[in-house]
Amino acid sequence: MNIQEIIAKKRDSKQLDKNEIEYFVREYTNGEITDYHAAALIMAICINGMTEEEIANLTISMANSGEKLDLSKISENVVDKHSTGGVGDKITLILMPIIASIGIPVAKMSGRGLGITGGTIDKLKSIPGYNTDLSVSQFIENVQNIGISLIGQTENIVPADKKIYALRDAIACTKSIPLIASSIMSKKIASGANKIVLDVTVGSGAFMKTKQEAESLARCMNKIGKMVDKETVSIITNMDEPLGYAIGNNLEVKEAIDCLRGHIPEDVKEIVETMGAYMIYLSGYNKNINENIEMVREAIYSRKAFNKFLELVENQGGDISYIKDPSKFEKSKFVIPILSEETGYVKRIDAEIVGSVSRYLGAGRVNKEDDIDYTAGILLNKKSGDYVEVGEALAYINTNDEAKTKGALINLVKAFEITNRKVSKNKTVIEILTK
Amino acid sequence: MNIQEIIAKKRDSKQLDKNEIEYFVREYTNGEITDYHAAALIMAICINGMTEEEIANLTISMANSGEKLDLSKISENVVDKHSTGGVGDKITLILMPIIASIGIPVAKMSGRGLGITGGTIDKLKSIPGYNTDLSVSQFIENVQNIGISLIGQTENIVPADKKIYALRDAIACTKSIPLIASSIMSKKIASGANKIVLDVTVGSGAFMKTKQEAESLARCMNKIGKMVDKETVSIITNMDEPLGYAIGNNLEVKEAIDCLRGHIPEDVKEIVETMGAYMIYLSGYNKNINENIEMVREAIYSRKAFNKFLELVENQGGDISYIKDPSKFEKSKFVIPILSEETGYVKRIDAEIVGSVSRYLGAGRVNKEDDIDYTAGILLNKKSGDYVEVGEALAYINTNDEAKTKGALINLVKAFEITNRKVSKNKTVIEILTK
Repeated sequence: MNIQEIIAKKRDSKQLDKNEIEYFVREYTNGEITDYHAAALIMAICINGMTEEEIANLTISMANSGEKLDLSKISENVVDKHSTGGVGDKITLILMPIIASIGIPVAKMSGRGLGITGGTIDKLKSIPGYNTDLSVSQFIENVQNIGISLIGQTENIVPADKKIYALRDAIACTKSIPLIASSIMSKKIASGANKIVLDVTVGSGAFMKTKQEAESLARCMNKIGKMVDKETVSIITNMDEPLGYAIGNNLEVKEAIDCLRGHIPEDVKEIVETMGAYMIYLSGYNKNINENIEMVREAIYSRKAFNKFLELVENQGGDISYIKDPSKFEKSKFVIPILSEETGYVKRIDAEIVGSVSRYLGAGRVNKEDDIDYTAGILLNKKSGDYVEVGEALAYINTNDEAKTKGALINLVKAFEITNRKVSKNKTVIEILTK
Repeated sequence: MNIQEIIAKKRDSKQLDKNEIEYFVREYTNGEITDYHAAALIMAICINGMTEEEIANLTISMANSGEKLDLSKISENVVDKHSTGGVGDKITLILMPIIASIGIPVAKMSGRGLGITGGTIDKLKSIPGYNTDLSVSQFIENVQNIGISLIGQTENIVPADKKIYALRDAIACTKSIPLIASSIMSKKIASGANKIVLDVTVGSGAFMKTKQEAESLARCMNKIGKMVDKETVSIITNMDEPLGYAIGNNLEVKEAIDCLRGHIPEDVKEIVETMGAYMIYLSGYNKNINENIEMVREAIYSRKAFNKFLELVENQGGDISYIKDPSKFEKSKFVIPILSEETGYVKRIDAEIVGSVSRYLGAGRVNKEDDIDYTAGILLNKKSGDYVEVGEALAYINTNDEAKTKGALINLVKAFEITNRKVSKNKTVIEILTK
């Protein structure tokens, strides 16, 4: 086997076989294949694409590149969820306690934020005391004890993805369906999921900018799931506008607590109910989607889900007094409203701009090793469709860095489009792909 | 300027502007851009191509990456030649003394062999004492004194090409018209040529396997020449079969001496006369191609070209007793005939196989740093169209490594195709592109 021959095949749009893909993933992970060889191959994949068979083989090879969790002690059917990334996406924090409260085990590893996309792990870390770094055995034990654990990805899960992802980021190859699909699915497989529900986001705040691209990615991941015998359902959702009202780590935790207490914004509710219903479906617990949606609602309004969240936080060392009284969470020194200069209806709030400004304020990272300000971010006061008068707050910026307030306000105002005509809200769940 | 944005543009088949190309070439040469960034960009260029404007800008940026020779002291019109590579190509050794003997100055830097393509510098080094490493001032002085100097490329000429070429070789991007064209033309420009005649080879022993590809490359280089005001003529020649009878370093020097003494095989003669006629044309010495061909013939038959070659070798420290009596050249310990197993006509002698076997015998390099055995190679006894009887020698292998003789014979026989029908010889010069 020879890396140059493999590169030449993909350069010429030929199909790589299983052995060639395995060889590349194994030897690149080992450091035997250099970054420049990998960069050439990754670029050729990015431009020329891959067949379904190639993508499945790439996914399996990546999943096999490190530790693979065996969650069979927990259940035969461990259901996992994943989002392809968005702004203000606190779905995991709300949905997973709901699922666990219904009696379906939740053993979930989440990632850190990068770029304008927040990470569940950073959000959980904003809860004082919450430990995201458990050993695998402790993780499994927690799920066995209380039905839920949420932790960060262990170091040894899919090392191939860590290397390939960092390289893709460096060489402008992040937006490639075969590479995104194999990255996501390899992590789900290696972390022990048998059934997977995916939130494939589309719009200004997402990787996929068009519905067509999102559908291609969704179909690709569903197909991989089928080929590796991990049934997968993809929900395509709108990420033109941030999800909910809060963007930023402890701001989102506070909003998630509100949601679990029944105050749940419409867009968040749509996604939580739809993904929840399909997670219950895939777990084998109940096959009727409408009944499952009712089950999700009941878990919220009965407070069973909120209580499960308390149990989770306590079990992982978090201070539950913050969950019971979210006003205890530290706040930014500077909380400044951005005032509307017009009267009318909010037509659009550009998620990409909101995400960028939020990151700039300290809520996200520019480089991998950057520290995060858990209090920083943006609180929307209006969502699209809302009526707003001149001088009314559209949103509040939150930061501890006074020097950044001016630039943030100047940029954030560009995110809002106000019109004098009434605006009808779009649905957030655009499409459900079960195949 | 940001390398990731440049990569992304080319990934999406967009045109890079002059500043972006200059930035890449300069910063990659300086080591500020990493090999993996460069590998991604080079692969994107290899797959998505470049416009004529991009190729011209790449060529100029590369030419400007190091030292540029000023040959204006020698002549306003310095004519250079280059071949895109072949097997048994000793044209420079024959043609340049011819041109110099006519009174047109020859100041030529040549490359080393790599792969199955021999290099003029290795051939010259097989002449005992010949010094290929002159300073630029000595080089220019030699041309001023005797009208000719042939040396190796100096270290500082087109450092960008050295890095990009090595990377292309590693990542399977050697066969890309924009990259081949810019590599060749940048070296011609930096080494001071004002007018250029190119031998664009096509066939089994060449980079370009089809006439169409060779025409594309030729047109591309002519166009670059036009854009940078260095008039260029490309001659497309057949490289399905080795050129002449000798393949290997001192074997080719001996054949070149034979040619300069009037014993010139038909294929070599065609190329020498055509390229020579166009070099004379471009130099401004005489504009009539037919007259120029006669001038080339006269330079050979009058021995003026041979005497110029003697003068060149002596002037660069070579032992001219070898040129006067080529039987003095060292011979391989093992000279073994390969005998025909059939009676008939030679239909084809595969240049790629002959080149590979010759390299295997010691005439070429597998890695850049490999030593060369100047005596090793192959002497053909028959060329295509020739009649051969069973037991007659088709060729002779020459090597000092006895262990290699068996493998060489087994492989070399595959290069010969014998048929019972009479075969007409093809023309070697296929097409002349003056625009």
